[in-house]
Order: sequence, then C-alpha cells, then structure tokens
Amino acid sequence: MSDEPKGTETLGVSFSDKVPEGDEMSRAVCDHCEFVHYVNPKIIVGSVVAHGGKILLCRRAIEPRRGYWTLPAGFMEQNETTQEGAKREAFEEANADIRIGDMLALYNVTHISQVHIMYRAELVTPEFSPGMESLEVGLFAWEDIPWQDLAFPSVIWALNQYKSVIHQSHFTPFTNPHPSEDDAMDILRGLKKV
Amino acid sequence: MSDEPKGTETLGVSFSDKVPEGDEMSRAVCDHCEFVHYVNPKIIVGSVVAHGGKILLCRRAIEPRRGYWTLPAGFMEQNETTQEGAKREAFEEANADIRIGDMLALYNVTHISQVHIMYRAELVTPEFSPGMESLEVGLFAWEDIPWQDLAFPSVIWALNQYKSVIHQSHFTPFTNPHPSEDDAMDILRGLKKV
Repeated sequence: MSDEPKGTETLGVSFSDKVPEGDEMSRAVCDHCEFVHYVNPKIIVGSVVAHGGKILLCRRAIEPRRGYWTLPAGFMEQNETTQEGAKREAFEEANADIRIGDMLALYNVTHISQVHIMYRAELVTPEFSPGMESLEVGLFAWEDIPWQDLAFPSVIWALNQYKSVIHQSHFTPFTNPHPSEDDAMDILRGLKKV
Repeated sequence: MSDEPKGTETLGVSFSDKVPEGDEMSRAVCDHCEFVHYVNPKIIVGSVVAHGGKILLCRRAIEPRRGYWTLPAGFMEQNETTQEGAKREAFEEANADIRIGDMLALYNVTHISQVHIMYRAELVTPEFSPGMESLEVGLFAWEDIPWQDLAFPSVIWALNQYKSVIHQSHFTPFTNPHPSEDDAMDILRGLKKV
C-alpha cells in the first residue's frame, strides 16, 4: 500500500523535490518529464454497525494489527461517496448489508496523513460472515467488546463516542479526543478499563 | 494539477491495469517495477468566513473558473488537520487570519473524486488582501453576493446552508443538496434568484 515508487532508479526515473510553478509547496517532480507526484491525505470511510443493541466487529486478516478487532472501514475509492464507501467496506470485510445513518466522527490522523470519516449504521439483515480481509466477524454486546484486543485507538474513540449519543437523533460529529482526555492507548495496553 | 504522468512513454515507463494481490480493484501497476499507483479521492478543505455579518469571498486568479468568486478552500496537504488546512487556505488565498468553528458541510463531488469539508469561521482581525491565487478579496453583505459570478455550485450550497444555521450553535453538518432541490446551476446561469 506504499505511495512511493519502488526500484524506479533502475529505469533511470528519478524525482527531485521542488516547488512547481504557481505552487507554494515542495513536491516530488520527475527530473525527465516534469510530472508532479502530488501526495495528499487519504480518506478512510467506515461505520459503527449496530444490530439488536450489539456492535459488529471484524478480526483483521491483514497487517497492520492482524488478529486484532476493528470496525468495518477502509480506503475510500474513486467516484464513490463517503457513505457508499462505508457501505462497500462493510460488505467487503463482513459480507454485511448496512444502512448508513448520521456522520459519527471525523478524525485527523496527521502522522500518517489520514482523515477517518465514520458513520452510524445498522444491519439491514442479520447476516454476516468474514470477507477476504477478516479472520472472523461477530456482534458484540458492549460488555463483551474485547477492548485490549482492538486494533487502533480510533476504534476505541468511535465506540465510546457512538455510545455517548446512542439515544440522540441529532448531534455534532465528534473529532479526535483532546490528548489530555485520550485514554485509548491505556485501554489497549490493559492499564485502564472502559 | 494532473495526477497522470505526462510523456512517460518516451522513458519506456508503462502502466497496465491489473488487480494487485490481496486487492479487490484494478489499479495502474508499473509493468517494470510493480509499483502500484493508487489513486484515491482528494480532500478540499475550506470555510465560510464571517466578519461583522459579511462573508469573505475571493476572486480566482487561477483556472478553473478564473475571475469568478469563491470561498477560501483548496487541497488538503500532508500532515495537517482538516481545520489547519482550512486555516492555511484562508491565509494563502486572502492573507486572512481566521478562527475555525464547527464543521458546516461535507460534500461528495464524485465525478472528480473530491470530498469537500467546509467549516464555519470568523476573521480574527479585519485584515485581508489578495494572495497568489486571488485577483481580489472582499467582504460581502448577503444582498451583495455576486451569485451569478460564483465559481462553483458548492459555493452556493455552502453559503445557503451557512445562512440557514447562522443562529444555531449546534447542528448536523450538511451534505450535497438532493438533486431535486439543487438550484445552484440555475442560480449560476441567472435563471433563479437567491
């Protein structure tokens, strides 16, 4: 999933960092053809999918964090909406047909230049099974969520924020928790209980 | 601002569409080095900036829609948050120091694979001037907004949606208007008044 060309030196292709005309930032520009390799943040679309008071989680079959539990989410693709992308990811990872609701949260994960857009969702039918990227898939009651075995801090953020507005039909979407209030890493390390 | 390599054929570099291992979609893969050229939707970050009941607009010095008025907005860059990006764009396009507020809207512009994330904002100081990408910059009372000379339908969406929640401190962010209710093109063509 790298953005960087591999082994292109052997082809005599090389890029230099320079500021293209009319731009304000340095970019990787091909030394031969002046092609500007713009790299911009990527969007992850996903959802907290509920059914009968339980939450759908997928155990990852791929790195990073293979074997850990996550929410259905992945890279948004060309020519789809954010909602369509979140629906597609639930189908790919859990063979689940979901109905997308309100936007739950927008997270900025700046160190890897990702923007995560998460929705509330519901299962349309109570059917699901592991997709290609999942080892297993399950519906979890809140008290059965395997907090220490979740894949990423953002999964913890989304689950807790989801619960905090579970009875609200309208709310302002959440963002990253303030660092001083972010206990996700402590939860993953088993130092704190939810 | 093209994502496509130009003139690379002359270097003997060629890409073929194929599905990389473990992927589910066809991608442009280099025939020599197997580099996968992932192309994903890009994020535009921007804001509706208010000061004293007026709105900040910028007249575009660049294509597309050179000479038309727009909101300060542009491509989100690596390692910044969506809010930081919106603030940077106001500075680059209008030399304006702004304070970012709530998320106003998330628009999916699928035919060009863009996601627009717009915020409410205020001028920190009543100072602004045209940046490199603007011909002029001004504060407009609602009744003075040059509707027929706005650059894009999404500018009309954001302005109207901004006005509809101007007295609300909390609201659910907007999305694209439903096609049956979207009169932005009629407004740009002068067929309908705001």
